[in-house]
Amino acid sequence: MKTTETRKLGNIQITDPFWRKRMKVIRDEVIPYQWEALNDRIPDAPASHAIENFKIAAGEASGEFFGFVFQDSDVAKWLEAVAYSLDSDPNPELENTADQVIELIERAQQENGYLNTYFTIKEPEGKWSNLRDRHEMYCAGHMIEAAVAYSQVTGKRKLLDVMCRFADHIDSVFGKEESKIPGYDGHQEIELSLVKLYRETGNERYLKLSKYFIDERGQLPHFFDEEKKRRSDEKPFWWNDEYGDYSYHQAHLPVREQKEAIGHAVRAMYMYTAMADLAKETGDETLKQACETLWENVTQKQMYITGGVGSQDFGEAFSFDYDLPNDTCYTETCASIGLVFWANRMLGIEKNGKYADVMERALYNGTISGMDLDGKKFFYVNPLEVWPKATEKRKDKEHVKPVRQKWYSCACCPPNLARLIASIGHYIYSVDQNEVFVHLYMGNKTELEMDGQKVQVMQETSYPWDGHVKITLSPEKATEFTMAVRIPGWCQGATLKVNGKIMELTHLIKNGYAYITRLWEKGDAIELLLPMPVERIRANPNIRGNAGKVALQKGPVVYCLEEVDNGANLSSIYLPKESELEETYDEKLLDGICVITARAEKVDEALWNGELYKPIEPKAKPITMKAIPYYAWCNRQPGEMIVWISEI
Amino acid sequence: MKTTETRKLGNIQITDPFWRKRMKVIRDEVIPYQWEALNDRIPDAPASHAIENFKIAAGEASGEFFGFVFQDSDVAKWLEAVAYSLDSDPNPELENTADQVIELIERAQQENGYLNTYFTIKEPEGKWSNLRDRHEMYCAGHMIEAAVAYSQVTGKRKLLDVMCRFADHIDSVFGKEESKIPGYDGHQEIELSLVKLYRETGNERYLKLSKYFIDERGQLPHFFDEEKKRRSDEKPFWWNDEYGDYSYHQAHLPVREQKEAIGHAVRAMYMYTAMADLAKETGDETLKQACETLWENVTQKQMYITGGVGSQDFGEAFSFDYDLPNDTCYTETCASIGLVFWANRMLGIEKNGKYADVMERALYNGTISGMDLDGKKFFYVNPLEVWPKATEKRKDKEHVKPVRQKWYSCACCPPNLARLIASIGHYIYSVDQNEVFVHLYMGNKTELEMDGQKVQVMQETSYPWDGHVKITLSPEKATEFTMAVRIPGWCQGATLKVNGKIMELTHLIKNGYAYITRLWEKGDAIELLLPMPVERIRANPNIRGNAGKVALQKGPVVYCLEEVDNGANLSSIYLPKESELEETYDEKLLDGICVITARAEKVDEALWNGELYKPIEPKAKPITMKAIPYYAWCNRQPGEMIVWISEI
Repeated sequence: MKTTETRKLGNIQITDPFWRKRMKVIRDEVIPYQWEALNDRIPDAPASHAIENFKIAAGEASGEFFGFVFQDSDVAKWLEAVAYSLDSDPNPELENTADQVIELIERAQQENGYLNTYFTIKEPEGKWSNLRDRHEMYCAGHMIEAAVAYSQVTGKRKLLDVMCRFADHIDSVFGKEESKIPGYDGHQEIELSLVKLYRETGNERYLKLSKYFIDERGQLPHFFDEEKKRRSDEKPFWWNDEYGDYSYHQAHLPVREQKEAIGHAVRAMYMYTAMADLAKETGDETLKQACETLWENVTQKQMYITGGVGSQDFGEAFSFDYDLPNDTCYTETCASIGLVFWANRMLGIEKNGKYADVMERALYNGTISGMDLDGKKFFYVNPLEVWPKATEKRKDKEHVKPVRQKWYSCACCPPNLARLIASIGHYIYSVDQNEVFVHLYMGNKTELEMDGQKVQVMQETSYPWDGHVKITLSPEKATEFTMAVRIPGWCQGATLKVNGKIMELTHLIKNGYAYITRLWEKGDAIELLLPMPVERIRANPNIRGNAGKVALQKGPVVYCLEEVDNGANLSSIYLPKESELEETYDEKLLDGICVITARAEKVDEALWNGELYKPIEPKAKPITMKAIPYYAWCNRQPGEMIVWISEI
Repeated sequence: MKTTETRKLGNIQITDPFWRKRMKVIRDEVIPYQWEALNDRIPDAPASHAIENFKIAAGEASGEFFGFVFQDSDVAKWLEAVAYSLDSDPNPELENTADQVIELIERAQQENGYLNTYFTIKEPEGKWSNLRDRHEMYCAGHMIEAAVAYSQVTGKRKLLDVMCRFADHIDSVFGKEESKIPGYDGHQEIELSLVKLYRETGNERYLKLSKYFIDERGQLPHFFDEEKKRRSDEKPFWWNDEYGDYSYHQAHLPVREQKEAIGHAVRAMYMYTAMADLAKETGDETLKQACETLWENVTQKQMYITGGVGSQDFGEAFSFDYDLPNDTCYTETCASIGLVFWANRMLGIEKNGKYADVMERALYNGTISGMDLDGKKFFYVNPLEVWPKATEKRKDKEHVKPVRQKWYSCACCPPNLARLIASIGHYIYSVDQNEVFVHLYMGNKTELEMDGQKVQVMQETSYPWDGHVKITLSPEKATEFTMAVRIPGWCQGATLKVNGKIMELTHLIKNGYAYITRLWEKGDAIELLLPMPVERIRANPNIRGNAGKVALQKGPVVYCLEEVDNGANLSSIYLPKESELEETYDEKLLDGICVITARAEKVDEALWNGELYKPIEPKAKPITMKAIPYYAWCNRQPGEMIVWISEI
């Protein structure tokens, strides 16, 4: 059975103002800007050289390779974002540019299918000698994802053919057979991309190769040790010198024995995504169980309220259960994006609202906070508390930037966000036989095929500011199937109507979805009323730093306080337990947001007379506290920001 | 006029149980252990080689230099601690050992007076070529301090003569004159030691040399740049590559232009100490002003409630105003010791209780927390909040150790604490003409000379557990002079009696001291009743991490909660505002401490059902919270610890 990912794209039209705005920004700002960046045409920006590397590898330019070993992946992510963008916004000129890049890539491919500009240009003898560090298959994976997307959207197979040749070559190099290398990449990515390639081409070799990489990972004797011996490398690996294992790459144990998320967060997310894909495609129960165990660990012990993951800078990594500091976290944009991928694949295994809840949490908070409203600046690190001076003066906070940056030399997050947002439509629905699942609420039009009948689907909503959702179904002719609409985990007291008639929800709900089976006729409408009052969320008391604090959340949107609205020293603001939380939609502020205000108190510094410590009863002044959505922070004057607010 | 530091020692006998116990531990554990360590006779301990280095330098052993460039200072600090210990506890065997070490040191001295085993053995051509990094004068300074102490206590001048020769040599090498090097040491220490040497010998050249080093520091063209050019060193300095200046060494500006403490905290403390000494000895008003400005900055903006200073690991350094995180601080034991030195010297400039308050704060908290009760294990870093797992799993907390360590290869803190505790008597009194200042309260007997008369002084107290202090004066014959007794800044409602008669304090107090001038007769007694109820101390609201929290303090002693008394997850404990704080003296616990208990609440985790975030009203269980003195933490089962407690 085909899954969401494999459905022909081009049939979901996003009409939602919230997401459409972001898609436009990707189309008009991010994609053109990155194209200029890839071609080194941005003054004052760090050189990319990514296109030039392909030219040199193709023998069409002279010079040296420049950039990271994974520089090729920048081109891949750009192409993938372009593909998705072309899907919603056809643009012949952009498509032509992409076609030319693809031709260049093809010319840079070696005869045996090998494709990687770093090794082609700089270290031709070093191919496949350092899987741990060199990202060869990581780059391949991203290019495969781009190839699949480009083929799906444009119908053009050139890049897909190129990448099938490379995948075939990889398959000929890696595996259990004696003649092959029994290895896997240090940065997971190829695994999930091979499942995509299998779904697109139907070639089971790709599925098997992906499964091989996942199954082999962490087995003993350890491949990273073995390849290290082969290259006579004496240097300790920077991370495992510290930790004594390969947990940085989630290769410290066979994947089925891993119970806690550890190591580099993006690698973890990409691996778990592939594991879920494989569990679905192969029906492997042990792999499914491993995914579920890791899911519980991440989402119940190692995830920020924003859907951010990776609580430490060292290794851009997970640390341990309940260690979720707000001001020193890493919470990379790419890791939140990876969490969206993983949640999406878990939904592929089991339709359970808990997966969609986390997907939605990441989408409305920790992913899109990575980009400013204009698509011109980006965060890698998405902190939940910022004191700008500390990020400037303290070494242990220097990874936290108080303002978004223009572009990075390691440009992973911006194009990753571009491809996510450009493909946001893929996360809304999934179809299982005669069931249509609605995971996300956003305005869109699409067409599904149920029981051989085409069904027009239209969603209308002002989500995430208002929980009223209307889904209108127009089958060609009356057709029986099931609509399973998600009742979000954050929602109490949802109301569901079909053609205006209220349905008794308790009987319809299973695992977070309300199942409505009927003969659907043209114009039938499902209406959902999802109350989304502002709520005070408290953290599990094991999260040390959130003791005595609340976060404000409205629907899926987590809020924060900014200095520009509340003055400096946000930690001296106390929200009384009894204060009412008022919400107002302000269409002019930050592209239109729901603002939360409340009567609060701010400690009066005057009492201290400049002293540090005193046995005094603090006095407070009343203030009107103003909170804005977390994703929109740092789009005005820079300053302090907090998500978790002291409560009295 | 001679100051405290220059008074002949040997006349203060500590009878105080609190301090006497610690002095015994220094005598019986730390000094013998360090002697074994210096001689590499401790199995499994990192090699010291410090004595062996001197033997090699003296031509009495063969082999290579081993250790840090400042390895010699370990021997110096040991000798200084030995000197002070011999003062209170004569020990001919130990004195004989020390005499032999001193003879060895003399034999290791070069003909021109130069003395440093690293350069003598390993890099004879490199002398004075890298003042920034190589600690040559830092080692000299510590040996001068040892020489002064040893001479004062034993009357033996050999080491003093050795160090005078070295100081004379240094004086011949450094200075403004064209033939000399216009430099100063990267690690301040020589400056304060030269003032001691001046005070001991009366030789003004040492005072002038100290003043030269202080005045020259931070002037342009910058000496560290110039010497770097001379040695054709291209490498960026690790700290100023980051910060663009020499603030790590407090050499970013001339000292009189420095307004905020910055850089390596121990260096800062030693420099400020020397500056205060010089301000006193030379009457330099600009230097005095600089000291006062820096004092206000450190004690009103950059000091922990424990008297710890240096809030970040990177550079073991100050960060910036109000940046005082509890769980990532550095707060090195040596830095708190340095703060005691500095406070002591500020009292030399001006008798103001604010200096003694800080000195006392550091003495009862952030210094002695560096050693366990048995003198066998030591903290370098003295955190105010510890979650052991985080120190193990997070790179940004790996400098914080959850338990004291046996000994360090960089053995600066243990011997520094040894010399401080062994000389604790020096910090109690100072005498200005006809005024006797009592800065600290601890049981002791001493003899002063006032107006030509010998005056026996006896202090009796159960401080710090009880604020009743009795000072009995016994002059040879009735003598008029002033007793100025400190009324601690933490104390409200002190009562002062002379021979049983209550004195009206308001008229007697000036800057934190009560001045009593009278004709003192044999057996006259001053009684102080210093109420020391447990108080809830709140932090200046600019200290972000202490918002909504209180620290408990009784008299000068800051308290903490430990997991062993209160269970895990101390941040989930809330102390209600109205809870009474009960104190009980427990003579069996931790060598005898006052324990604080209170009714408190601990959040019930069960409500969360393992989830991370919920819109629930937290429920709490009543508990009896138990607090112990901060200095005594980690003397039982290891576990969590916090100083700042959430309040509701």
